[in-house]
Amino acid sequence: MNDMGDGTVNTQHDDSAPLLRSITNPADVKALSRDQLHELCREIRRTLLDYGHRHGGHIGSNLGMVEATVALHRVFDSPRDRIVFDVSHQSYVHKMLTGRAAAYLDAGRFGEVTGFTNPDESEHDQFVLGHTGTSISLACGLAKTRDMEGPDSGIGNVIAIIGDGSLSSGVAFEGLNNAAEQGGNIIVIVNDNEMSIAGDFGGMYGPLARLRASGGTAQPNLFEAFGFDYRYVEHGNDVDALIAAFDEVKDTDHPVVVHIHTLKGAGYAGEPSADTTVTAENAARDAAGESARAVNPGSDTGVKPTDNIAHAEPWHSDHCNLSDHEPHEGQCEASHWQNPDSSLGRPDDPRKHYGKLAMAALEPRFVTEPGLVVISPATPGSNGITHEFRERAGAHYVDTGITESHAVTFAAGIARAGGTPVVATTASFFQRAYDQFFQEMSLNRSRVTVLDFLGGLSGSDNTHSGAYDVAMFANIPGVTMLTPTSQADFLAGLAWATMPAGAAGAPDGPVVIRVPGEPILAAERDASLLPLTGGRGAANVCGAAEGRLDTDMLSWRITHAGARVALIGLGNTYPLAERTAVELAEHHNIDATVIDPRQCSTLDTATLESLRERHELVVTLEDGQLEGGWGEKVTAYYANHCIAGGDGTGHAEHTGRNPHVLNVGAAKEFTDRIPLAELNERYGLTVPAIISAVTRCS
Amino acid sequence: MNDMGDGTVNTQHDDSAPLLRSITNPADVKALSRDQLHELCREIRRTLLDYGHRHGGHIGSNLGMVEATVALHRVFDSPRDRIVFDVSHQSYVHKMLTGRAAAYLDAGRFGEVTGFTNPDESEHDQFVLGHTGTSISLACGLAKTRDMEGPDSGIGNVIAIIGDGSLSSGVAFEGLNNAAEQGGNIIVIVNDNEMSIAGDFGGMYGPLARLRASGGTAQPNLFEAFGFDYRYVEHGNDVDALIAAFDEVKDTDHPVVVHIHTLKGAGYAGEPSADTTVTAENAARDAAGESARAVNPGSDTGVKPTDNIAHAEPWHSDHCNLSDHEPHEGQCEASHWQNPDSSLGRPDDPRKHYGKLAMAALEPRFVTEPGLVVISPATPGSNGITHEFRERAGAHYVDTGITESHAVTFAAGIARAGGTPVVATTASFFQRAYDQFFQEMSLNRSRVTVLDFLGGLSGSDNTHSGAYDVAMFANIPGVTMLTPTSQADFLAGLAWATMPAGAAGAPDGPVVIRVPGEPILAAERDASLLPLTGGRGAANVCGAAEGRLDTDMLSWRITHAGARVALIGLGNTYPLAERTAVELAEHHNIDATVIDPRQCSTLDTATLESLRERHELVVTLEDGQLEGGWGEKVTAYYANHCIAGGDGTGHAEHTGRNPHVLNVGAAKEFTDRIPLAELNERYGLTVPAIISAVTRCS
Repeated sequence: MNDMGDGTVNTQHDDSAPLLRSITNPADVKALSRDQLHELCREIRRTLLDYGHRHGGHIGSNLGMVEATVALHRVFDSPRDRIVFDVSHQSYVHKMLTGRAAAYLDAGRFGEVTGFTNPDESEHDQFVLGHTGTSISLACGLAKTRDMEGPDSGIGNVIAIIGDGSLSSGVAFEGLNNAAEQGGNIIVIVNDNEMSIAGDFGGMYGPLARLRASGGTAQPNLFEAFGFDYRYVEHGNDVDALIAAFDEVKDTDHPVVVHIHTLKGAGYAGEPSADTTVTAENAARDAAGESARAVNPGSDTGVKPTDNIAHAEPWHSDHCNLSDHEPHEGQCEASHWQNPDSSLGRPDDPRKHYGKLAMAALEPRFVTEPGLVVISPATPGSNGITHEFRERAGAHYVDTGITESHAVTFAAGIARAGGTPVVATTASFFQRAYDQFFQEMSLNRSRVTVLDFLGGLSGSDNTHSGAYDVAMFANIPGVTMLTPTSQADFLAGLAWATMPAGAAGAPDGPVVIRVPGEPILAAERDASLLPLTGGRGAANVCGAAEGRLDTDMLSWRITHAGARVALIGLGNTYPLAERTAVELAEHHNIDATVIDPRQCSTLDTATLESLRERHELVVTLEDGQLEGGWGEKVTAYYANHCIAGGDGTGHAEHTGRNPHVLNVGAAKEFTDRIPLAELNERYGLTVPAIISAVTRCS
Repeated sequence: MNDMGDGTVNTQHDDSAPLLRSITNPADVKALSRDQLHELCREIRRTLLDYGHRHGGHIGSNLGMVEATVALHRVFDSPRDRIVFDVSHQSYVHKMLTGRAAAYLDAGRFGEVTGFTNPDESEHDQFVLGHTGTSISLACGLAKTRDMEGPDSGIGNVIAIIGDGSLSSGVAFEGLNNAAEQGGNIIVIVNDNEMSIAGDFGGMYGPLARLRASGGTAQPNLFEAFGFDYRYVEHGNDVDALIAAFDEVKDTDHPVVVHIHTLKGAGYAGEPSADTTVTAENAARDAAGESARAVNPGSDTGVKPTDNIAHAEPWHSDHCNLSDHEPHEGQCEASHWQNPDSSLGRPDDPRKHYGKLAMAALEPRFVTEPGLVVISPATPGSNGITHEFRERAGAHYVDTGITESHAVTFAAGIARAGGTPVVATTASFFQRAYDQFFQEMSLNRSRVTVLDFLGGLSGSDNTHSGAYDVAMFANIPGVTMLTPTSQADFLAGLAWATMPAGAAGAPDGPVVIRVPGEPILAAERDASLLPLTGGRGAANVCGAAEGRLDTDMLSWRITHAGARVALIGLGNTYPLAERTAVELAEHHNIDATVIDPRQCSTLDTATLESLRERHELVVTLEDGQLEGGWGEKVTAYYANHCIAGGDGTGHAEHTGRNPHVLNVGAAKEFTDRIPLAELNERYGLTVPAIISAVTRCS
């Protein structure tokens, strides 16, 4: 257990946290004396603070849950009793108490656990998930099977844990409404750390605050309104009080909510006290902190300024996932596992870089366009929608909480009224609004602009991958999806998508703009990476600065006209197309045509037809899933237009009219925190791999 | 206004409903005397009953909303004041009062309006939508723009109407929570007709019933818990009481819920009374009614047994969309516009036919498989999950209300606990669970069986099309999607998908089964339509009856081995492939290979490779969208495996190794109530069109 791996690090840990190190499973927690329980909590808190400092992570929420998690494992019998964490960023303490403490104590073993519960990691973990609000519904399913199968199910109490912020998700309400109806033993622990009252997350938080202020006696009581029995624990960081409360509800025969009032970040500023108001206010003020980039696209260490430890340790607020209220908790976990120190002094990651550019382009218009509204269903900071911008934007900015479905529907309503909505969040979170994209947005031709962050391949974990966004958006009728390859194109696309309704050249429906990723930002930062069009970036920036607006956003851009081989690089893969062309020219005597398609929702058939004459091979590049993606549409176009040439036969001797098409992109699979470079190797998204394919087929 | 179109029909209408006929816009409603308002309500009610009898439609909910809608147009000023109906099946009266009365009075003009509000139809209509729960969020958007743009917005009061059943949708709660936070003038009218208490739709309905019983004074008050001001109107069918209530909240400066207690189907059994309890109980009992098929796949006239008129007029309960509580209201509107009498004596439509088969196959297993659970997020009857089955199934059946997100998450929980969940609903409604399919279901390898009804092309309206289901499901990593082409395959797929976890040959993750559509059912009913394998259907039925279980569900089935041309017909298009092959053999001297791929989530590369030798042309057929669909994957497979043959060049003279591939299927578009045969013509899914393509290209 004490192998330090990288032995250079803090040997003081060999004799630190002796109680915690002695915990190999929850039974050990049950064996402790009350005094030892208190000491265990102190050790865990110290461990979390040290871990957070050296590694980063969702420390604040875990600090708030130290006593509750110890009490859970003291009272309940995991894995027979099932504990379901919502998203599970607050599960570090649970992991420490279920045989994984060394992964938090010993720097050399930090990589042994993920930021989420994961059944592949422990029998005490129920699910691996990346988005909030589903723990109650999952618990309903576990409880249903227990009640159907009886003792054979091997399932005892079923406990769902959910934060007050996560309660803003619609599916959480569906779960509450169904759990009380289902009946039987379902225990929902609402971890209420008051963070939500610092933000504009909904009408329910006022009554919730009054409920707390009344010691759980005030009406209206949201949980009772959904048919739950209800208990309130004012001192949610008092392990004895929590044990007593959990003992009371253990083996309950009906659904009950245990509403525990916790202190987020409890412990940094000393032992938690019952008076958390001041701390909560501090936390709210701390939200003013802004976060900077991390190593990979979508990288987030997850420590929030709302963690008390944040404002005392500059690197926290300087290098971590911004989020200024609890609802952001648990989002943007991508590449959670670097040491934040490693990103010291680095510039913004692409999400923050292009997000800030977008907000800077929109902000001056607020004066003359009252209907222009930026909507972020939580996690604005991760996408460059800074606290300062939000302050200045005032009513032009709306954070709807973790409610993508509402956010997109809300935007459709704004559009219908003649306003100009811009909805911004992470690609994987937009999956929650898929039906609204079809119905409220596209079927109604709503002029909604969607800023799609972290689209495409990245080193993200398997719960936040952007590899599926083109398949999600570009196959919806009526959706235009832009894939800009430069700052200039990105801003031009945003200007076009948000043009006043009816203006000449304005789109007549929704436009999704896939925010450029690391490959584009890197190319722009090093123009030499764009040898064919080295000047293009700068020129376009000037163009954009001059307010030039290109309303032909859908035609493909032939950046170099060659022969034999055409390389079409979608979005983030465009710089790869250029680099490959240079290599083909320099070492293979192939003067390849290079094309930036600029969008992936329609094919530029004129350009495709023009390639028939002088090209034998067309290579499509995309940094997303091939199946349901973009490149296969190019392949199918030629296959289904074999007769365009005239004689109309598909015989081999005639198909020369059709260039042969190769599609390079991602397989249909989930990947988990695999570095982008490694994914590119796996999928053949490298110059050598493409050269090899080209030379094989041409 | 009185042109009868088809003059043969009821000339008595020329002088009927004189007041209603005099209403050309809402201003006319304002000009009426109080007595005239009462008479107008009586005329509207008579018109709805007559219309419902002759045409069908969501009559019950509209009968309940007669007075409320008249009061709305009396008090508010549409279109300046914006009235947003949820889904909008309850908008017939609104349409009558906004210049469209003739479309309900005159049989010859029934086709002039759709079953939904539609901005293309009237400036008084805000949106066209097919699923519940979004009216509050849409209203938030309209109100936001009004408040941002001020008088220039031209928007006054914003009113959202939502039924008590629709409140079970998560997005409705997101809307409530955000509306109260947003503030300003937002009026939410909760149309509470008590239907929900007849069903198991959630813990909130008990407190809601107590709220009604107390005259709106009891706590907990769900709406106040979300931060709303609140008014209660006990007599929701008393136009004077409603006018008074709406006058009170008109021009409110803050969000307010007006909770109106209405009587669904009010008027059939005489004037509505304040005592609705008995009637509601009758309605609940009426839920026992079952519904039969209608003309097209997914066809539903939408009149529910819960309509009081139902049990008095046999054809209602005999020929309409079954739904036994309010939450079903507003779902399954497909092909709404036929006269139910036209389907008298017809057999079940495919949804009910195959749905009943599935339930009949599962029911005997309940005794020995306690963990086997059928989950329907509303609309069970439309999918053959009959009331009688549900009664017998007891705890093995769960209706989660209109909560696809919860339903799929719930199923993942059941699977995690070792149970066997089967989730069944309409393809377009499953769009609400897209994120849960990715995360809770697929990423967690949950053994969930999804019964995907109304997938593929049908004559449905533009809000319920199944043309997009393959693009939705089959591109998700880890999802297996079966496309059975016979009853036997359908049942074999269901048996395989629901095999005990770990059993030999059992799937290790989720399985989506696309329920066969009309083309399959028609072919099975007329074996002569399956000339190549006429006996197959019967044989397989026997096989299934003998309990034979084929656990190789993923390899393609070569039903006829020919040469030159291969026809691969996915799912509902398989009979078309067979018919085309016969025509090619008889009149074009082409002995085409015919293949039933049986599933669309993976390619059978062995079969594809085997086609290289003797085939020049491969034609893929699918009755869904080509973009993001299945056929293009076949095309891309050959294009990207051009070198499998050996010399690996893509030159024209070598691509003979690759059969040429043609993809036949649907364009990326929304279609609205276009008969299936017409869609097939449009997309080339006919024998002549395929023959023509084949002879052009081979």
